[in-house]
Amino acid sequence: MENRTEIGSIGEFGLIDRLAEPFKSHQGWTSVGIGDDAAVLNSGGKLTVTTTELLIEGVHFDLSYTPLLHLGYKIVSVALSDLAAMNAIPAQLVLGIGLSNRFSVEAVEELYRGVKNACEEYKIDLVGGDTTASPQGLIISVSAIGVVDAPQLVKRSGAKPNDVICVTGDFGGALLGLQSLEREKQVFLANPEMQPELDNKSYVVLRQLKPVARFDIIHEMRDLGVTPTSMIDSSDGLAAEIIHLCNASGTGARIFEKNIPIDDETYLSATEFNLSPLTAALNGGEDYELVFTVSQADYEKVEKISDVTAIGYMTDKQDERVIVMKSDQLVNLTAPGFGA
Amino acid sequence: MENRTEIGSIGEFGLIDRLAEPFKSHQGWTSVGIGDDAAVLNSGGKLTVTTTELLIEGVHFDLSYTPLLHLGYKIVSVALSDLAAMNAIPAQLVLGIGLSNRFSVEAVEELYRGVKNACEEYKIDLVGGDTTASPQGLIISVSAIGVVDAPQLVKRSGAKPNDVICVTGDFGGALLGLQSLEREKQVFLANPEMQPELDNKSYVVLRQLKPVARFDIIHEMRDLGVTPTSMIDSSDGLAAEIIHLCNASGTGARIFEKNIPIDDETYLSATEFNLSPLTAALNGGEDYELVFTVSQADYEKVEKISDVTAIGYMTDKQDERVIVMKSDQLVNLTAPGFGA
Repeated sequence: MENRTEIGSIGEFGLIDRLAEPFKSHQGWTSVGIGDDAAVLNSGGKLTVTTTELLIEGVHFDLSYTPLLHLGYKIVSVALSDLAAMNAIPAQLVLGIGLSNRFSVEAVEELYRGVKNACEEYKIDLVGGDTTASPQGLIISVSAIGVVDAPQLVKRSGAKPNDVICVTGDFGGALLGLQSLEREKQVFLANPEMQPELDNKSYVVLRQLKPVARFDIIHEMRDLGVTPTSMIDSSDGLAAEIIHLCNASGTGARIFEKNIPIDDETYLSATEFNLSPLTAALNGGEDYELVFTVSQADYEKVEKISDVTAIGYMTDKQDERVIVMKSDQLVNLTAPGFGA
Repeated sequence: MENRTEIGSIGEFGLIDRLAEPFKSHQGWTSVGIGDDAAVLNSGGKLTVTTTELLIEGVHFDLSYTPLLHLGYKIVSVALSDLAAMNAIPAQLVLGIGLSNRFSVEAVEELYRGVKNACEEYKIDLVGGDTTASPQGLIISVSAIGVVDAPQLVKRSGAKPNDVICVTGDFGGALLGLQSLEREKQVFLANPEMQPELDNKSYVVLRQLKPVARFDIIHEMRDLGVTPTSMIDSSDGLAAEIIHLCNASGTGARIFEKNIPIDDETYLSATEFNLSPLTAALNGGEDYELVFTVSQADYEKVEKISDVTAIGYMTDKQDERVIVMKSDQLVNLTAPGFGA
């Protein structure tokens, strides 16, 4: 190669944009292409929505404090969360597993037990299971398939100025759970006989180990007849997701520090770890909550849902992605992954 | 863990069966579940067919002799071949890439150039591109989505006794290509400045580096009004695929050595490497040809297709999976991956 550009210099999202640019569309039935949470195929009936995640030991999970049972559950939630973000109902799951020889049949069965628990909870079918050798560690690819009627499909790109920005649940918990588990890992390294023990673990650890895709809210909004104008799930942190929605919709955004939902335990844990609770919420990631926009008229219905919070609104100033602090100071939202 | 069963002791297919056993179906629209080439979802119009492959450096490919451009093309062919095996027409592709920091932006672009070439040849859309860090080497997950009208869906399980077993193309070439490239790798190890040079390479090397999913035959059979009774693509070797079809259909099979298509160059290369050309064809794998069965009536139409060969027939003896040698001797078909 004559030139060598480091991937870190353009960021993950810069890389994806650069890679995607030369591709043209061949299929009239492709409803949504690169740049949303999932791919959408219009095959004549309901739209089919597909998403894939690639999860690598040492990057996405650490087996020294992640029980395989929980990991199996989590990988399903992570994949389905992308379907929820398109307002689709999940139907099927396909797993590809790369295993080094340190894994026994029983270990893989434990992982699959977690997958099965999730399949039963989400009422979906595991329809394919490919296993292969891995030279090092555990590699998991998980594809989820769902369906949605065309008028109910929600993309990232439909937000309009003055739409209300809403979120489900609370933010920052998964990061603090990770911090707690990393601290526990030091105990494990001192005593390798230790097994992760979760019975007495707190909210934040469960936020990290066992996230839940928010189909409860998807169904509540359907019951109320509300279709969000744009939606995304929060895998990369609240700030990154708002920037994604703004970029796709061509809007600005203004959110309010006082409205960002942060659980008390998250707040206290952040303080304990000398982290800003707000930074944990904005940049922590892995909360797998929904971030969406609704028209002002629809917001009157949505605000009745107990676990939904309005945190701000979209604006017509494309450059404006700001958080209004409790001090009334304006601070620009920033997020990792968008390059230097 | 109290028990430890080594995965090798039950084989890949034994592992998949054991893992899949506890799962129940929740979704009425799941048309095909675990145990076929792809998952099928009935969302009201055409059936949607989805397949995922997980490809890991050092297991599935060796970058010391695989140009990234060819690898990009191959991963698309490998995924689409599973759709061809369901008689589906491909529409969309989703890629997940795990990259260690030894890869530059330009290297990933080269890989994507190969993906783009394949997308243009197969007339499909790349609709998602997830990239992530990898602690070691290149990891690729590729999901392909296609569609098929319900009456044209072909499963592994539909073969009947006396159906004719047909194959496309020829077998064993990809294995001999791999052998040739492995030999070339020794040159590379002696001189790391060497770049793979493919212009003067032969048929077998292209069989390994640039396989083609056989949609040409899928379309020819559609034009003739023929729907196979069962079908699979040959990723694991001809013998393994015939055993898969027999297991799914509850049939036996009898194939004939004299009918197995083996290219002259494959034959000569096998001899050069002291391998049996027949063993290369039966157990070599990675040829990505189609192995299918048709009724005797349909065979009269199919035999007009130039690149299709009848190699035997299905029988009603479920235990019989045999090859009739040129010497008239009967030999049981065996395949790796089915356990001890």
